[in-house]
Amino acid sequence: MNPTIENMLQHVSVRDFTDLPITAEQKDSLLAAAQHGASSEFVQAFSIIEITDKNLQNELSDITISSPHVKKADTFYVFVADLHHQATILRNHEMSLEPIKNMEPMIVSIIDTAIAAQNMAIAAESMGLGICYIGSLRNNISQVAELLHLPDFTIPLFGMTIGVPKFKNQLKPRMPKDNHVATNYYDESKFNDLSSYDQTVKDYYMNRKTHPTDTSWTDKNLAIFKEVHRPDIAEFLKKQGFSLK
Amino acid sequence: MNPTIENMLQHVSVRDFTDLPITAEQKDSLLAAAQHGASSEFVQAFSIIEITDKNLQNELSDITISSPHVKKADTFYVFVADLHHQATILRNHEMSLEPIKNMEPMIVSIIDTAIAAQNMAIAAESMGLGICYIGSLRNNISQVAELLHLPDFTIPLFGMTIGVPKFKNQLKPRMPKDNHVATNYYDESKFNDLSSYDQTVKDYYMNRKTHPTDTSWTDKNLAIFKEVHRPDIAEFLKKQGFSLK
Repeated sequence: MNPTIENMLQHVSVRDFTDLPITAEQKDSLLAAAQHGASSEFVQAFSIIEITDKNLQNELSDITISSPHVKKADTFYVFVADLHHQATILRNHEMSLEPIKNMEPMIVSIIDTAIAAQNMAIAAESMGLGICYIGSLRNNISQVAELLHLPDFTIPLFGMTIGVPKFKNQLKPRMPKDNHVATNYYDESKFNDLSSYDQTVKDYYMNRKTHPTDTSWTDKNLAIFKEVHRPDIAEFLKKQGFSLK
Repeated sequence: MNPTIENMLQHVSVRDFTDLPITAEQKDSLLAAAQHGASSEFVQAFSIIEITDKNLQNELSDITISSPHVKKADTFYVFVADLHHQATILRNHEMSLEPIKNMEPMIVSIIDTAIAAQNMAIAAESMGLGICYIGSLRNNISQVAELLHLPDFTIPLFGMTIGVPKFKNQLKPRMPKDNHVATNYYDESKFNDLSSYDQTVKDYYMNRKTHPTDTSWTDKNLAIFKEVHRPDIAEFLKKQGFSLK
């Protein structure tokens, strides 16, 4: 086990930062790390918008579920799945946009963007910084796209706040390997036996220092999936030019 | 700059491995790293299938564009975007599956899976191993799902080969920050001025040691997007239960 992996195994989302700013040099390293991830066919289908305008940050924060935390964060990036470069190239050559509208490149752009973001997260944590993914920008994805002046074939997937941790949550117990790692074939009976993991998660939530609560992983997922979330995502994607076909 | 970030900045896809196997301890670290990434609302919407059956590996390899490399790889994982746990929980509680069919959780599962995979990639590279994402499993995504016995609400997103590098490609020059990193707003005019980057990429391909070729980044993207790729992805997703709505 080396320091890179040791750091990864300690990952928790951090939502409470000191007032210490991140240096310009640190930001350069974060962005360089993000840019050096793998990319399918080297299409590099992502963009990164750093939010430095505090009014804009406030407007974006109001969309999220972690609003006070996002408002206060010294450093806030928005990660955009981005095939607009490719659309522009095709338009410049008067070629059909159908190949970009198709489902495959949209999935590629989401994967490329998550890889870039995770590189930034690992880089930040390797410097002793904390991060939090802000998926709740998708609460109003159209408004985020408007606020950031996003053109067609782009998707504001999530934000990331970064700072010097003031408070860190306890590490959450991950799903046991038996529940989602298998050899050769998907192992439905083993994967779906969540009783042991449910107890582990319940113990974690009952005994954690902040907001102890009596809930299992199954309970959590029932609460999350009891109703449709963000029902406007598909319409937004169509507005951005994707056919979903 | 620390060793974690230095390693990330040297990332290249490796398709040529020595015969040295990866140890069981190394595999444990790789899987632990993958499991410890961030996950939206802690849904952990991914599974990992390690392929150890050489016949199965051959069948999967034949689907890819890097078939000889994938066939030979000592270690080969398939990363599956996976909401089947959640579907089972809802079924066990006789609740509607609509919230899982919706576009939002499908996107979450793709992001969670890419984050897990990139953690494994960084962990592997921190140990001196090389990796290659195998997106071309999506050449016949239905067949991959059949071969791995994948149930509904799962997507075999990509594979990853891992091994001790025998030969490493030269580092590819990334897109300049000016072309996809901006402050506060998407900067369409700067982002779309690819002339400088096109020259950089052309120089790279003309001067690289293996298969030198006269092509720019724009040329590459024109070639990739001149026709629809993998037109069956959307139908496959629907077959898996996703509504794409």
